[in-house]
Amino acid sequence: MSVPQTNLAWATLLDVHPPERGRRRLHDRLAHALRAAIREGRLVEGAAVPPSRTLAEELGCSRWVVTEAYAQLKAEGYLSARTGSATRVSWTPDTAPPLPRARPAPPRPPIRYDLAPGLPDLRAFPRRRWAEAVRTVTGSAVHYDLGLPDPSGHAVLRTTLAQYLRRSRSADAAAASVAVCAGITDGLARLCRTLRAEGIADVAVEDPGWPRLRDAARSAGLRVHPVPVDHDGLRVDDLAQIPARAVVVGAAHQFPTGTVLSPARRARLVRWARDVDGFLIEDDYDAEFRYDRPPIAVMQGMDPSRVFLLGSVSKTLSPALGLGWLVAPAAMSSALRAANPVAAAPPVLDQLALAAFIDRGWYDAHLRAARRRFRARRDLLVRTLGAQVPEGRVAGTAAGLHILLHLPDGTDTRAAVRAGAASGLRLADLDDYRVKRSAGNALVLGYGNISDTEISAAVTLLREALRPPR
Amino acid sequence: MSVPQTNLAWATLLDVHPPERGRRRLHDRLAHALRAAIREGRLVEGAAVPPSRTLAEELGCSRWVVTEAYAQLKAEGYLSARTGSATRVSWTPDTAPPLPRARPAPPRPPIRYDLAPGLPDLRAFPRRRWAEAVRTVTGSAVHYDLGLPDPSGHAVLRTTLAQYLRRSRSADAAAASVAVCAGITDGLARLCRTLRAEGIADVAVEDPGWPRLRDAARSAGLRVHPVPVDHDGLRVDDLAQIPARAVVVGAAHQFPTGTVLSPARRARLVRWARDVDGFLIEDDYDAEFRYDRPPIAVMQGMDPSRVFLLGSVSKTLSPALGLGWLVAPAAMSSALRAANPVAAAPPVLDQLALAAFIDRGWYDAHLRAARRRFRARRDLLVRTLGAQVPEGRVAGTAAGLHILLHLPDGTDTRAAVRAGAASGLRLADLDDYRVKRSAGNALVLGYGNISDTEISAAVTLLREALRPPR
Repeated sequence: MSVPQTNLAWATLLDVHPPERGRRRLHDRLAHALRAAIREGRLVEGAAVPPSRTLAEELGCSRWVVTEAYAQLKAEGYLSARTGSATRVSWTPDTAPPLPRARPAPPRPPIRYDLAPGLPDLRAFPRRRWAEAVRTVTGSAVHYDLGLPDPSGHAVLRTTLAQYLRRSRSADAAAASVAVCAGITDGLARLCRTLRAEGIADVAVEDPGWPRLRDAARSAGLRVHPVPVDHDGLRVDDLAQIPARAVVVGAAHQFPTGTVLSPARRARLVRWARDVDGFLIEDDYDAEFRYDRPPIAVMQGMDPSRVFLLGSVSKTLSPALGLGWLVAPAAMSSALRAANPVAAAPPVLDQLALAAFIDRGWYDAHLRAARRRFRARRDLLVRTLGAQVPEGRVAGTAAGLHILLHLPDGTDTRAAVRAGAASGLRLADLDDYRVKRSAGNALVLGYGNISDTEISAAVTLLREALRPPR
Repeated sequence: MSVPQTNLAWATLLDVHPPERGRRRLHDRLAHALRAAIREGRLVEGAAVPPSRTLAEELGCSRWVVTEAYAQLKAEGYLSARTGSATRVSWTPDTAPPLPRARPAPPRPPIRYDLAPGLPDLRAFPRRRWAEAVRTVTGSAVHYDLGLPDPSGHAVLRTTLAQYLRRSRSADAAAASVAVCAGITDGLARLCRTLRAEGIADVAVEDPGWPRLRDAARSAGLRVHPVPVDHDGLRVDDLAQIPARAVVVGAAHQFPTGTVLSPARRARLVRWARDVDGFLIEDDYDAEFRYDRPPIAVMQGMDPSRVFLLGSVSKTLSPALGLGWLVAPAAMSSALRAANPVAAAPPVLDQLALAAFIDRGWYDAHLRAARRRFRARRDLLVRTLGAQVPEGRVAGTAAGLHILLHLPDGTDTRAAVRAGAASGLRLADLDDYRVKRSAGNALVLGYGNISDTEISAAVTLLREALRPPR
């Protein structure tokens, strides 16, 4: 019996073996080659493959190699054989026109200087100590720690975080009320799903504010109501106009305006939550950084039964770590689990590493050094702006990782962002953080992810970007 | 002027300093003590605090310490002062009865032996090599890698995974079609949200099947339709009775029945997807472990425009790592991003560590060793069951990390699970994986997370648990 007539060169089937398959055994390589020929339409449905003895002679291999490869492809549905008949191809690739392919994004000019907000000092990430913390816990974890993780987080980290939040943020937190999550956005999505399950379908957010918070609330199925922010922070009295019984508030350092919620409004806000039988969601995203006084204590301590507290290491260590926390009222903890049946905690070894990093005092030491560095860098940026962009007015408390730069009426900040991008400078328009865009006249300048030595050049580019085109 | 009459012992305010606050400065400790007194109702709203000079004398500290502490508490809203008047407490703790506290779960007897499915061999986790991979990438990552992560995953890992899936699972995968996720459940939740956004509101799942897959689909807002499984896998023809245009299928090794989808059904299933213009979702959760032949190639390669592929390291390394992947049709990748606006990729250093772990050949070496170990352990378990539980019948392909133990009609498997738990043996009833529970007569026995030396004792406990109570 001779090899059937097809367009396939049977004798060369094994000639193609990409380097990545170099270690595979012969029958596996033959199965791969035949599978590819069938998938690509070179061997069409109904065509007979050679009897195993014939193909083995063609290839110069043992007959076993061929029967193994055929058996594999029969199990996978590419070949089939009836008793007494030849083995035939039983598969046809899709002949329909392929679905449209997604277009690649257009290339962007490279960023040389980053004056947009949102990132800490990535160059100062404590690589050696973090790797040491991971190494230690990877060796010392009990093997149960490597099993299915507790969706609320590992007990060791929850205990450490509760202690840290009591000590450093004056929170009213216990291990049982802390849930570990992937960051503030993840924590907010979880708690919004919980609010929805509890019958709260509307949430108020600060306007301007961090857009991902709105995305998280919407993705959890809540309606989002913007509330204005002024120089005293969230306009608490405006909440009366809104059907929401929950509000997300950056009390210690509002993003992006940089205001601190005033003492009187703090008291009114907690009273509002009691009056409407609702909840405050405290976005404590960068409160570790205050340069003129100790950080303001969290509002969560004022009423732990009404305030959710959200925090993370994204602004202190790195957003790439994906580690945050959510302190919930004790009465809400079972609802929080029930509303998030498939939410996973961050990887356990990372959780244990963060616990070790905090317990060894490395986190506090990192924060102390970062505070000194950012305070000096903020001063440098403000001085440089004063000299090079004298028409601008800096606003925002001496805190956090960004300032607001108010510009004269008529300044086209959107054009400035575009001009900056074209020259390698990343900028952010205040308007991009508003629910309703207005004629912009301020930039949000972040000084986390820029080195001191780059500030002068970056501000020079900023000054160029602010020049109206001729 | 004397200290006002309250029930507070002013002179001892600084005596209480828990060890965790030992390093704090004096004004910070004083603010903490006053804040606690106000929160706990020992200093009531309206009460005047002593003039700073008076309190400083009482405490034997400088007046600056007191004014700083007062200023802090004013900023936080606990104290307020009008010009020319005393500084007073401006805050009242919630006097409403506290919301009900969640009850703690009742304690469970400790697990000595784990014969439930779902876990790999946690004792064999390659701790040293994993820590080495993390250490290497933590040192070598560029600092941009520590910024905001790509929600679809780091390009390095996506490239490595695409290559691994082509090589090891015969998948049709490219870096652009791979998304990194936290595991199969997370990947399924993401793609179900995508299907819903594309107008697909119904999904079929295997019955029996892994309950968290159903939870994930439901949490994404899809209706879930169970389809029976028999000895050839999913009953593909039953899909015609169901409004679903998508189906989750464990083609290589169905959980929990251990069947392999038959060749004829593979072909029919892909044709079904084309006929209904729908999608297959391939749950490739443990296909790396096949003991009688090479692993069956993924169905995704049969029609990459219609099949989503889900996999993870949860059954090969550890579920605590939280690392998985989702291969999506090219036409769906932008829809996948759009439908998951706040989904975060796993921590970047873990992603880079997995890429290094695979690229160095450590993953393949780990899998080879694990295959040898699990093949021998499966044989040992089957032999031990044959000797000690002769009335049982073992089913399931020689693959994966679990077997099915059919028991005679009338066996109360639910009682056996309870009896096992009471004696420290974790068992799982097949019925727990069914959408509609029936009178159970099979157990799902996992041999991933039990050592060879424990199997004899565990099966003895199993035999005891199967004895009807007298």
